[in-house]
Amino acid sequence: MLEHAIQALKISKEEFAAQEPGLRVDLINAQYDLKSADFSVVLLIAGDDRLGGNEVIQLLHEWMDARYLETHIFRAPSSEELERPRFWRYWRVLPPHGKIGVYVGAWALNAVGERVRGEIDGDAFAQRLAHIRQFEQDLLADGALVLKFWVHIPHKDLKKRLKKAKKDDDTSWRVEEIDWQVYEIHDKAMPYIETLLEATETESCPWCVLDGSNPRVRDLSFAKTLLSALQQRLATAPPLPSAAPELVQEYPDALAQVDLTQALTKEDYARQLEKHQARLAKLTRRAREDGVSSVLVFEGWDAAGKGGVIRRITQAMAVRDYRVVPIAAPTEEERVRHYLWRFWRQLPPAGQMLIFDRSWYGRVLVERVEGFARPDEWQRAYDEIVDFESQLTERGMVVQKFWLHIDADEQLARFKAREKTPYKKYKITDEDYRNRERWDDYVAAVNEMVARTSMPSAPWHLIPANDKRQARTQVLDALCTALKKALN
Amino acid sequence: MLEHAIQALKISKEEFAAQEPGLRVDLINAQYDLKSADFSVVLLIAGDDRLGGNEVIQLLHEWMDARYLETHIFRAPSSEELERPRFWRYWRVLPPHGKIGVYVGAWALNAVGERVRGEIDGDAFAQRLAHIRQFEQDLLADGALVLKFWVHIPHKDLKKRLKKAKKDDDTSWRVEEIDWQVYEIHDKAMPYIETLLEATETESCPWCVLDGSNPRVRDLSFAKTLLSALQQRLATAPPLPSAAPELVQEYPDALAQVDLTQALTKEDYARQLEKHQARLAKLTRRAREDGVSSVLVFEGWDAAGKGGVIRRITQAMAVRDYRVVPIAAPTEEERVRHYLWRFWRQLPPAGQMLIFDRSWYGRVLVERVEGFARPDEWQRAYDEIVDFESQLTERGMVVQKFWLHIDADEQLARFKAREKTPYKKYKITDEDYRNRERWDDYVAAVNEMVARTSMPSAPWHLIPANDKRQARTQVLDALCTALKKALN
Repeated sequence: MLEHAIQALKISKEEFAAQEPGLRVDLINAQYDLKSADFSVVLLIAGDDRLGGNEVIQLLHEWMDARYLETHIFRAPSSEELERPRFWRYWRVLPPHGKIGVYVGAWALNAVGERVRGEIDGDAFAQRLAHIRQFEQDLLADGALVLKFWVHIPHKDLKKRLKKAKKDDDTSWRVEEIDWQVYEIHDKAMPYIETLLEATETESCPWCVLDGSNPRVRDLSFAKTLLSALQQRLATAPPLPSAAPELVQEYPDALAQVDLTQALTKEDYARQLEKHQARLAKLTRRAREDGVSSVLVFEGWDAAGKGGVIRRITQAMAVRDYRVVPIAAPTEEERVRHYLWRFWRQLPPAGQMLIFDRSWYGRVLVERVEGFARPDEWQRAYDEIVDFESQLTERGMVVQKFWLHIDADEQLARFKAREKTPYKKYKITDEDYRNRERWDDYVAAVNEMVARTSMPSAPWHLIPANDKRQARTQVLDALCTALKKALN
Repeated sequence: MLEHAIQALKISKEEFAAQEPGLRVDLINAQYDLKSADFSVVLLIAGDDRLGGNEVIQLLHEWMDARYLETHIFRAPSSEELERPRFWRYWRVLPPHGKIGVYVGAWALNAVGERVRGEIDGDAFAQRLAHIRQFEQDLLADGALVLKFWVHIPHKDLKKRLKKAKKDDDTSWRVEEIDWQVYEIHDKAMPYIETLLEATETESCPWCVLDGSNPRVRDLSFAKTLLSALQQRLATAPPLPSAAPELVQEYPDALAQVDLTQALTKEDYARQLEKHQARLAKLTRRAREDGVSSVLVFEGWDAAGKGGVIRRITQAMAVRDYRVVPIAAPTEEERVRHYLWRFWRQLPPAGQMLIFDRSWYGRVLVERVEGFARPDEWQRAYDEIVDFESQLTERGMVVQKFWLHIDADEQLARFKAREKTPYKKYKITDEDYRNRERWDDYVAAVNEMVARTSMPSAPWHLIPANDKRQARTQVLDALCTALKKALN
């Protein structure tokens, strides 16, 4: 892809000067219109030409209104970033609707850099490229305009430029130590760059390669590509992704396999609870010392007892070692970004356990069943979620997911019992009763979710919860087993 | 204050058990009601009794719904925290309305710890206490319920407990190395603790000292104090702070002193601009290398040319060295917290320049003049702002504030000129014309702001801006001078 970018095209100073004013007005006006748009712009500027890339970025900030660009350079990761999955630093600064996020180098340059320096092998590089594809796909599917520029300079031109700069006092300060370092590996990096560009080139998110050695051509090409993409997206929303045709596929009825008759006597429960909680206390202390963090997901029927199970976990732990995040309606800042953003931003520091009381699975459960998400939205969510959780486990996090299962009769009995509770938070509303009418739809959704998002490293546990004691000890046992395995 | 907390009071196991169930129901229900309240709860739990404090925190998470507690332990600061003012870590996790933020140790224990270890001297300790008072005052004035508990144990009881634990295999694991370290300095810390408690004791935000050596008394006292404070605040909003009576005080008419006739020829401007931008380029490179960050504030009349001035600054800099933050309407997450939160969360990492296009001064300018803030709100803002900026400069940040001044005729001429501009963002609305009617009110507000928030380390520059060239070079010059001073 790179060689095609280098053309003999020339643009004179005069021609450039003639085009500049109109382009600038149009760019600024497009940026103004964007402010009230319902999508965000993710602008990736990377390349093997550091100086050329910097000039493009300066031009962008000069020609557009720098106040409405959120530019991120990604120096050495902070300690907080090092404790999270690699893409956390990109997710955390995701622009909201109406804003342009400028990512400099970012995931593209990092992947190549690590591969060239031998920090990752071919397999890890391929895995990284898959994450990049999924990440860009996530943003696009969410309606973002994603624009990717690669600033390229042929090796011989880079050499010429650096030598010239060395002699020339006026420009020598612009060349830094790092430019010579880049030069040293420039040639070696080319095959990896080609691989990156090809692997992440898609119809809806193509690369635009800029010729770094030809500044006027480069700048005009950049500005015009950016402008026309902005104007086009502002004029016409892309067609909604079409949902897959109604699936004939049947998923195994995993819920039907759950034996709801299991129960524990009070005495057995007391003994087992004590045993498992003591185990958990020791394991979580070790997890803190070893810096191993975990992410737990709790889903289940209303009144299945999620809160009670979570309490039996946290009881055994020091407060500093866990955080519970209940998922309710998203805030405004969350609504104007990809739906996974609100979960990415919560990810725990090293050694901490993060417990989600409801989670991103709402997308394929309540949002699917109640029609809050479009079919294309919840259908693609399985891939998005699998990629998200893979990044957690690849970072060494323990990921365990629990579905607390009760039957409809048990739920009804619990609703009735709650009518007498002194706890306001357990009050039952008409909506709770209405939700019961969709029981079968939820069963289908749960079965598909379990089939499509269970992974050896991030399994679903279907927990029989008609008997609360049974549910609590079984969750504790599964959790301890997973922690023990991770800590060995 | 500490000795009064230790009482001979005793509570039997039976008495405790009899009170527990009712307290728990009431606490959970208060927490439920809080969810829809328009204030937040800041719960500080600190003390010289580490084990006792931990037990109180465990009790809190056991008796209340841990899912709706946001608990923060404050381990060693992250690299991101070390690059910001000390209180950044407390501000960044400020709970929104409807939530309880539990701060463990936090600003109280840190201040004492640093003083005991000799990391700060008496003056710095006194300064810290002033910041704490202002911080708590900020939260209270914003309507937060602030509750402070200090868990105290007499030195001899601490010794007894540690010795006993050492012998007892069952509890020895609870005593960690740090407990012996705490014991070593426990006695020495007492005078500083007394100073802290007295200096930060106020009528609206008193300390509640708990007797750590008497667990049942301690726990009941904690739970009842918390419950009654919650219930009382939920039942009756505190009276609005009364605004100071209409001030007779006249502030110097600083704006009248600005010589608006100053102007630069095109040639002088070109020469000076080049000179100052070259200076700025070098200074900001050095600031990056030295890790010196700056915070610039731009305020001024509509059409005074803020955007143009900011562009002349950023033109001279590498994109990675600055970020421009335009201040518009706050987001939902910002509206449910103290108004300074949105500025705290933006503070720059080491070496970066953060440029605010409008700022927290909106509180004492547009919000005051247009009546968006109550008199008590904008009147206390001066102290809040002075404390905020002091924390930036104490952290070594360069803080410079610019008011771009034009007269009403010049503004009218610019409005007229803008009617012909091709830039949509410069379109003039009826509101812009309406704002002109309040010109004199704004003059009074600016003069008071300048008089009450100018500090040697964070000065206001009143910039004559009828001539744009004059304004731009003068800002660049002032900025370079300030940077140079900070870098020497």
